[in-house]
Amino acid sequence: MDGPVLLTGAAGRVAEAILDHLGDSYRWRLLDRDPPEKDYSHEYVLADVTDAEAVRDAVAGASAVVHLAGDPRPDASWDSVLANNIDGTETVLDAAAEEGVGKIVLASSNHAVGGYETDDRVPTIYRSHDAYRLDGTELPRPGNFYGVSKATGELLARYYYDTYGLPAVCLRIGNLTKERPPRDYERGQAMWLSYRDCAHLFDRSLQADYGYEIVYGISDNDRKYYSIDRAREVLGYDPQDNSAEYDAED
Amino acid sequence: MDGPVLLTGAAGRVAEAILDHLGDSYRWRLLDRDPPEKDYSHEYVLADVTDAEAVRDAVAGASAVVHLAGDPRPDASWDSVLANNIDGTETVLDAAAEEGVGKIVLASSNHAVGGYETDDRVPTIYRSHDAYRLDGTELPRPGNFYGVSKATGELLARYYYDTYGLPAVCLRIGNLTKERPPRDYERGQAMWLSYRDCAHLFDRSLQADYGYEIVYGISDNDRKYYSIDRAREVLGYDPQDNSAEYDAED
Repeated sequence: MDGPVLLTGAAGRVAEAILDHLGDSYRWRLLDRDPPEKDYSHEYVLADVTDAEAVRDAVAGASAVVHLAGDPRPDASWDSVLANNIDGTETVLDAAAEEGVGKIVLASSNHAVGGYETDDRVPTIYRSHDAYRLDGTELPRPGNFYGVSKATGELLARYYYDTYGLPAVCLRIGNLTKERPPRDYERGQAMWLSYRDCAHLFDRSLQADYGYEIVYGISDNDRKYYSIDRAREVLGYDPQDNSAEYDAED
Repeated sequence: MDGPVLLTGAAGRVAEAILDHLGDSYRWRLLDRDPPEKDYSHEYVLADVTDAEAVRDAVAGASAVVHLAGDPRPDASWDSVLANNIDGTETVLDAAAEEGVGKIVLASSNHAVGGYETDDRVPTIYRSHDAYRLDGTELPRPGNFYGVSKATGELLARYYYDTYGLPAVCLRIGNLTKERPPRDYERGQAMWLSYRDCAHLFDRSLQADYGYEIVYGISDNDRKYYSIDRAREVLGYDPQDNSAEYDAED
């Protein structure tokens, strides 16, 4: 890659997982509306993704974009996700297509499909003997406005790929926690994503060739109701962690 | 139905088709930000669907909602569809769920899936011998920002049904023209929707029982790449028109 990789939402948790593991693997140009909490010694742009001019400046010369910025709260208000997540993602896609970057990697979310966890499926689908799987071909069923906004980001990326040829992968990230899976939370164990698997997933997303993809981003948990087959196949994703390895220690 | 049926976007073309045929079949409460072009002798509310308070007032007491309002232009700008179509639809859904109306019928669009008309499929899919069919279970592939906004309306309706139990049907309306199908426009002939079939489809959508549905709204054209099986099955849709009956007259 010639230019830097622009990473938006650099002060967030997904960015932390990526930069902790891949800080030296790419030339990063970080962007966030908040100043960095860690000193990553990378280029850092203080800007909001709803500021089209600032985003265009930040995308200039980038070889790829990792777009994480947005209101990350599952209970975020409609007005907040409308501006920060939906409009913000359109702003970033528009700038990326205009600049002709090689690809864009978008942080989507399990909340885009939270509505599949219906009363008649829960808690069975959180358990390892249950064979129910979502694989990314199903229609979204957002569980909250945050999920609506993430599914809309997927739609926007689809449009930009079809119209401008901007390759895009939407990663429906599960429950990202550092060091170990959540305790006493079956859902979180089923969709656990370790920091190193998260970083590996984004690394593969930056390296692989694809057109438009939606894949699930979780570790290789025994308990899972998201298929990672497509991530393996298209991206070469090869997760090393499994929440089941921690259960016995609880 | 006890209360009136609120119909938003009353000054538009879909409303014209509905009201021409069903003007006397329901007690209508019409809403538009523009004054009526015809005198329908129905209650008429002058309001914008992005005005939450006005929308709440208009929904009060309604038994059902037909939501058509929005920027109808396929080449509408992102900013316009973000406000009028996406935010406007959320405003209407929120008020409808709060009021506990019986159901909501949403005008979605063929543009939500325009991206399936790829260079390798066109113009073959517009012709009657081609068996390719979209049926509403496929992921949206918007062909423009308008299509993005309509697909997002579908997501929002899904969320409101899953969360608040508000029954919703999203009608992916084809090419609606009065009297006869478009000439010299294969695509428009394949997705033609006559005025009377349009009115019948909305009538069935107000009468039938369902939870959440996405169906295609076209006449029973020989040329079609949208399946109307689901509309027949769930809504009892029984279209009377077929664009092929007009071809010979061209």
